[in-house]
Amino acid sequence: MRVALAGFGGVGRALAALAFSREEQSVTDFGLRIRICAAGTRSTTLWGDLDPGTLAFVASRALPLTAYRGGHRETSLVKAALLARAHVLVDATSSDIWTGQPGLDLLRAAMNQGLHAVVLSKGPLLTAYKELQGLSQSARVHLKASGATAAALPCLDVAEVSLAGTTLLSINGILNGTTNYLLGRMEEGIPLALALQETVHRGIAEPDPRWDLEGWDTAAKTVLLANIAMGAGIGLSAAAVEGIGGLDAAFVQDALAQGKRVKLVGSAVRGVGGIKVQVGPQVLPCDHFLASVNGADKAVSLETDTMGTLSLVGGRSDPRGAAAAAYKDIINIFRPRP
Amino acid sequence: MRVALAGFGGVGRALAALAFSREEQSVTDFGLRIRICAAGTRSTTLWGDLDPGTLAFVASRALPLTAYRGGHRETSLVKAALLARAHVLVDATSSDIWTGQPGLDLLRAAMNQGLHAVVLSKGPLLTAYKELQGLSQSARVHLKASGATAAALPCLDVAEVSLAGTTLLSINGILNGTTNYLLGRMEEGIPLALALQETVHRGIAEPDPRWDLEGWDTAAKTVLLANIAMGAGIGLSAAAVEGIGGLDAAFVQDALAQGKRVKLVGSAVRGVGGIKVQVGPQVLPCDHFLASVNGADKAVSLETDTMGTLSLVGGRSDPRGAAAAAYKDIINIFRPRP
Repeated sequence: MRVALAGFGGVGRALAALAFSREEQSVTDFGLRIRICAAGTRSTTLWGDLDPGTLAFVASRALPLTAYRGGHRETSLVKAALLARAHVLVDATSSDIWTGQPGLDLLRAAMNQGLHAVVLSKGPLLTAYKELQGLSQSARVHLKASGATAAALPCLDVAEVSLAGTTLLSINGILNGTTNYLLGRMEEGIPLALALQETVHRGIAEPDPRWDLEGWDTAAKTVLLANIAMGAGIGLSAAAVEGIGGLDAAFVQDALAQGKRVKLVGSAVRGVGGIKVQVGPQVLPCDHFLASVNGADKAVSLETDTMGTLSLVGGRSDPRGAAAAAYKDIINIFRPRP
Repeated sequence: MRVALAGFGGVGRALAALAFSREEQSVTDFGLRIRICAAGTRSTTLWGDLDPGTLAFVASRALPLTAYRGGHRETSLVKAALLARAHVLVDATSSDIWTGQPGLDLLRAAMNQGLHAVVLSKGPLLTAYKELQGLSQSARVHLKASGATAAALPCLDVAEVSLAGTTLLSINGILNGTTNYLLGRMEEGIPLALALQETVHRGIAEPDPRWDLEGWDTAAKTVLLANIAMGAGIGLSAAAVEGIGGLDAAFVQDALAQGKRVKLVGSAVRGVGGIKVQVGPQVLPCDHFLASVNGADKAVSLETDTMGTLSLVGGRSDPRGAAAAAYKDIINIFRPRP
């Protein structure tokens, strides 16, 4: 299977490395030879019989795409993808959360040309999920987004496949590793500002941590889950969002002293008026499932009508985990069925 | 989609009730009208345009299949399934764990006739998984077994779909609700024999609790997971099995006083010599994921190479949960794809 890769940041590079290292395994296990045949960034687009090992080398050294010598050059990735006879486009761009660009236009063009879509960037899904879903149906192509919500934590697969035939009543999750880590440090009495400096220094948090801190990353992921798994059809602006910026360490420590833990929880609840998304700090009893999720781990509880509540925790929460989620989506699109 | 149902015990009845109550929902969501067109027990086999509501009524009152008036009678369920033009056979028999019968012969005959198979009984899978898997490939039919391992806990889906492209290094699980409940009572100082009487009285445990207590139920489920999710190709006799019958409450209480919990863990570990299955009580630190699984809940941790460790907990662990798992398998066989 021939893959066109948009974006060559951490996740795009991890996918190039993974595709190379797993190539023979996927042939053996699924009869699928998965190769990148086109790759593009804002400045460079390559296509052709790209050598997987060389591309993986460039990726694992965190070199720019221009470091790959050979292949043909193009200006448009979708044009390059068609020239290279790609079957699927992987959107690993860092698209804007409010406009969805540049991923959104790429996905529109690719799906209109009959390519399947595997999405790793949140922007296009947050701004235009309904449109993209409709396009996937009219163009008869797959739209997969496992890596866009919680890296390797398979919330979407589980909702679609494992809980098929149930009604999802609510989703509750700890979806942002940075804030969960910070709350852990605050339990130890470290002030938020200091803990934050530490995470930025260690490269855990983004240089601008407000997106995490103010709850917007959690909100974005919760809205995606609500739309894809529950059919909510809402935008990010419909979410009621509160972050952890207003909490102080003493409050978190007091809770712990009373056998409780403060967690930043994103929730989507089905009610009479539709599906409501809320994000905010919650004081949970220690035996609550989400209270036991520590450090940079992520977790989600899916409450159903006929299968009880199913909870998921863990799943590598880094670029490699997200790349592995996209790789799995590619396999699931093309794997043979009886 | 027309379903032939083998077995009309707790799970078979729950499936009949579920199929009726979800009929319109599945038409709306998946374009699938799922109906039971044949049903058989050891003594009775019905087929024809069975009325779903009447069958659900008979099921929900726990009446025998003979209480359904109407339909045609047959002696062989597979013959009835063919006469009724069934698409899938659901094996909800209580098949023997060592011979696999009567489910095994039913599944063989059905798959040879081109019917897909959804298996809820452990016997056929424990005795002849390799054969049945080969048969599903040669007959080009699906073989699904979500409900046979841990009711609604979707270990098999997750391994097959969500972890596609990874290598599964180990599986560790609490797979037997009865023993987990008993260990909880022993933590409260109640002797095992007394706690056991209580569970039998309350209908939680089987009348003959040795299958649970001596670890064989956990072993059977672990072997199924090892075979289906890890390709182990082993039988139940290859498992090293120890139960909780030899533990006394004082030992469990002492562990708790030291901040540890005793759990009956089934594990399958990939090593140089193949996949090794072991079942036995383990003393786990309180912050271990499996230590937090209480009461009749079930949980599984799946350790992968590229996606980290993913853990699942919960999922309704009763006949309704198992029926919902089979219902989901039916949907996943027939749902339309792009």
